[in-house]
Amino acid sequence: MSKPTVATYLTERLKQAGLKHAFGVPGDYVLTFMDRLIASGIEFVGTCNELNAGYAADAYARINGIGCICVTWGVGGFSAMNAVAGAYAEQVPLVVLVGSPRTMQRRSSMLLHHGVGDFTTMQQSFSHITVASVLLNDAAEAPQRIDRALARCIAEKRPIMIEIPVDMVDRPCQAPGPFAPPRRPPSDPDALGEALDEAMGLLSTAKRPVILGGAELHRYGLMQDFCRLVEASTLPVATTLLGKTVISEHHPQAIGVYEGETSRKEIRDIVENSDVVLCLGAWISDINFGVQTGRLAGRHMILANSGRLKISQHVYEQVWIGDVVTGLADRMPADGLPHPPFTSVSKLLDTRYSVEPGRALTVSHLAKRINAFVGEDTTVIAETGDSIFLAADLVMHHDVGFIGQAFYLSIGYALPATLGAALADPARRPVTFIGDGAFQMTAQELSSLCRRQSNAIILLLNNDGYTTERVIHEGPYNDIQPWAYHKLPEVFGGGWGRCVRTEDELNDALTYARSSNRGPALIEIKLDRFDTSDALKRLGAALSPDRRERKKQISDNG
Amino acid sequence: MSKPTVATYLTERLKQAGLKHAFGVPGDYVLTFMDRLIASGIEFVGTCNELNAGYAADAYARINGIGCICVTWGVGGFSAMNAVAGAYAEQVPLVVLVGSPRTMQRRSSMLLHHGVGDFTTMQQSFSHITVASVLLNDAAEAPQRIDRALARCIAEKRPIMIEIPVDMVDRPCQAPGPFAPPRRPPSDPDALGEALDEAMGLLSTAKRPVILGGAELHRYGLMQDFCRLVEASTLPVATTLLGKTVISEHHPQAIGVYEGETSRKEIRDIVENSDVVLCLGAWISDINFGVQTGRLAGRHMILANSGRLKISQHVYEQVWIGDVVTGLADRMPADGLPHPPFTSVSKLLDTRYSVEPGRALTVSHLAKRINAFVGEDTTVIAETGDSIFLAADLVMHHDVGFIGQAFYLSIGYALPATLGAALADPARRPVTFIGDGAFQMTAQELSSLCRRQSNAIILLLNNDGYTTERVIHEGPYNDIQPWAYHKLPEVFGGGWGRCVRTEDELNDALTYARSSNRGPALIEIKLDRFDTSDALKRLGAALSPDRRERKKQISDNG
Repeated sequence: MSKPTVATYLTERLKQAGLKHAFGVPGDYVLTFMDRLIASGIEFVGTCNELNAGYAADAYARINGIGCICVTWGVGGFSAMNAVAGAYAEQVPLVVLVGSPRTMQRRSSMLLHHGVGDFTTMQQSFSHITVASVLLNDAAEAPQRIDRALARCIAEKRPIMIEIPVDMVDRPCQAPGPFAPPRRPPSDPDALGEALDEAMGLLSTAKRPVILGGAELHRYGLMQDFCRLVEASTLPVATTLLGKTVISEHHPQAIGVYEGETSRKEIRDIVENSDVVLCLGAWISDINFGVQTGRLAGRHMILANSGRLKISQHVYEQVWIGDVVTGLADRMPADGLPHPPFTSVSKLLDTRYSVEPGRALTVSHLAKRINAFVGEDTTVIAETGDSIFLAADLVMHHDVGFIGQAFYLSIGYALPATLGAALADPARRPVTFIGDGAFQMTAQELSSLCRRQSNAIILLLNNDGYTTERVIHEGPYNDIQPWAYHKLPEVFGGGWGRCVRTEDELNDALTYARSSNRGPALIEIKLDRFDTSDALKRLGAALSPDRRERKKQISDNG
Repeated sequence: MSKPTVATYLTERLKQAGLKHAFGVPGDYVLTFMDRLIASGIEFVGTCNELNAGYAADAYARINGIGCICVTWGVGGFSAMNAVAGAYAEQVPLVVLVGSPRTMQRRSSMLLHHGVGDFTTMQQSFSHITVASVLLNDAAEAPQRIDRALARCIAEKRPIMIEIPVDMVDRPCQAPGPFAPPRRPPSDPDALGEALDEAMGLLSTAKRPVILGGAELHRYGLMQDFCRLVEASTLPVATTLLGKTVISEHHPQAIGVYEGETSRKEIRDIVENSDVVLCLGAWISDINFGVQTGRLAGRHMILANSGRLKISQHVYEQVWIGDVVTGLADRMPADGLPHPPFTSVSKLLDTRYSVEPGRALTVSHLAKRINAFVGEDTTVIAETGDSIFLAADLVMHHDVGFIGQAFYLSIGYALPATLGAALADPARRPVTFIGDGAFQMTAQELSSLCRRQSNAIILLLNNDGYTTERVIHEGPYNDIQPWAYHKLPEVFGGGWGRCVRTEDELNDALTYARSSNRGPALIEIKLDRFDTSDALKRLGAALSPDRRERKKQISDNG
């Protein structure tokens, strides 16, 4: 075996942490390291630009447990910044590897290309959206710096940045020892005990308790424990939009996605009429809870997040969410907790559909048709916009069956995310919902799916512009250039495209997609400009600045 | 006239500063402000994504004197970050307008969509790559904050960020008074006098002096004064790559672009054999001066940058470049300074070309052919990579006839920049050089050119991958998916495309482009994978990490 170097140490650690692919774009400062990365057996996946690499790596990390981009200094890092910010916002463990100028050059006053400000400017900018940001400018120190940063990435599920000067790549350093995944600090036993007592007290005297699961259950690998708690409790369980699929939606206790004003009425009734909400690993965000959070304010909320538990208005510190989940599961009475009867979401949803040749497609038909299409073998990826609201009501068949950036909501995420999901879980076929405006943001990444002959199915909902914005507030800025989207596979050299307007055309395209394996399918679905999901209509009304301005004025005027 | 508000104050000031267009992407936090922007008469130009908006606004600002993007909080700002970093690096006055959540929401603990960290995170990240970053959360304070930020943008030619909460847009505030463009602080008269004396002393005793002009002459509007100085001196004048066209290249004293090892031999000989270099407004960067800066170290360097003058190793502070240019011009002897004879670049370059039907295209033929194509009525935009080196040797006909990000070198810049240039100077037709790898980065922005029926001519140099990287260091990451680029206009719904392989095909396409006005022309030029400009070959050899590693090892081993 060859002598260990900074590059072999870093790549070995990343492999030990579970990394098999790294996304990125080459640039002169990172080429040497890229050679070593490839030699280590980590597959390098070139994307069309760095932002797309970041989105792909984010989705990859959500499924795989860790993701990585490898880019050049300055231009590469800054281009990926929005994807890194999104990973920070949604707690995704993403490693940003940046190849940078030689250590010696840092001592000269010459300006180097791709640079801005001084040698620390990029790292400073990243410091606000990463939990650790290290420079490997000392080979002896490198192992410790790598390990500390990686431990934070894995423990806190947030991005880190590691900057590697060209001349440090092959510097000898110690060999990596066995990999010890970082452990969460233990809960304070007294705080935990009192918190569990209080929570159980509330739950056992409640008349209409409900459980609400959020994304942290997925991030911290607590989904099995969560399922045990749910089953021991016998209670109905909803999830937030970001937490969709933290429990299988075919579970008999699953009632679907709660998203405040945007929710379906059946789910909203159960959650908003409850007297105690056991909310585990969810973030109190406007989209998760609908714009009017007040709706849950009148009842008891037991809110567990990574390191703390809040009951009503008081907080228990140093109480880890994993201990809350298992602690509550252990304390459940043998026959669970009392609650009114409820109907599981899988029973509520009607997946029967009829196809009438020549009938124009509607969002409502599409939802039913796709519910019958997705199964155990698919991962659904939903773009911000009506796509995510439409997808919210699909019934997913397995864990991590759904990927959407439901809190940060950066449009353009879904198409590169499809590439990431395809690589992270090749056994499952990505089915991606995406609007036309969002598609234009990152359209070129379809070519990477062509290049890899991915069998992803892209359902492009073409409703002629930024429909979500139109619903909120109409203006000329919501118009976009109409493209012949379905012709793109021909340009990109792979897969196939089709434009469908009627129920039978969609049906034929899906049938063909099911049997075809010649690269990605791009199915452009023409919809009426104002045909949106009901969820979006409700959300739009709530988000409209006009409406809020009017409300504001009313309240200002007393 | 309606009552002045924060929005009317801001838009009025921007118009007074010369802004006529703003680029951007809508998002709910910015929609109300966008309405006011449009109502003010500033034209909103929607782009496919925010990074592209940033690049377009950067090129627009280079021609127009000020540029602007208008985007939403979080996702919008972070997506544009690399363009803003580029504008900071290359001193481009770019205003980043961000619509953000209501001031009242900032006091709540609820997480808002598009957000990351806390309400200050985005502004903090931007603080490293802007010269001012203000939040308009107080209507009475807004005018002062706007004026101060805008003054810095214009005085320092660097980006600023202005964040406008939704509820502040229509708040009443004072009306804007007359606009006073900020003035540079005056030079210290004693320092200036001594500096000019010393510089003139060196220049008048020099045997082979040369003038080198850089981008700051353009940024600070000193090109006329510079031309007067050049003519009074009678000396040969070169420019840096970033400073190309700070003097017309048809000027009889112009000898072309000096870029260190990358330069043509004739130019390099004059500059590197000189005994005094009067270097005005240029940055000492690796690309501007070639990787081996040492080449100019042996002679006297008089280096003026915005606020200081350096002669050899000592610095005069508080000496403004404008005063240096005019001061030296005033002090020139009536018959100029002695110097050896030289040949002007316009005489050196051979624009005669012959077209042999069926002969495969080469970079060398292309350069000659295009030199005969560009004229007074064109703006040349060159992408980072071989495009910029090829374009460096074209002879430009007028000021600001050339746009390229020659220092920051972010690939993907040129296509959105074409949109910006087309709007900033509609009288001139953009002719854009771009490589295939770079084109894929921001390809969707061709659709904005289609949408506006721009008559831009895009020369896509298709040499099958990241050729510049290949020359530096070959690896599998330099391969990209081959596209049928010329079919894109059909997808985007405008303009026309053609793929050319031979001299006659190129000739026909250019002839057709000259006469056609139906949207942008995309001419895909098939080149041999290893056919590059000589300049790139030289640069590649100099930048290669292998070569430097070898050199490093040799020097380490004594």
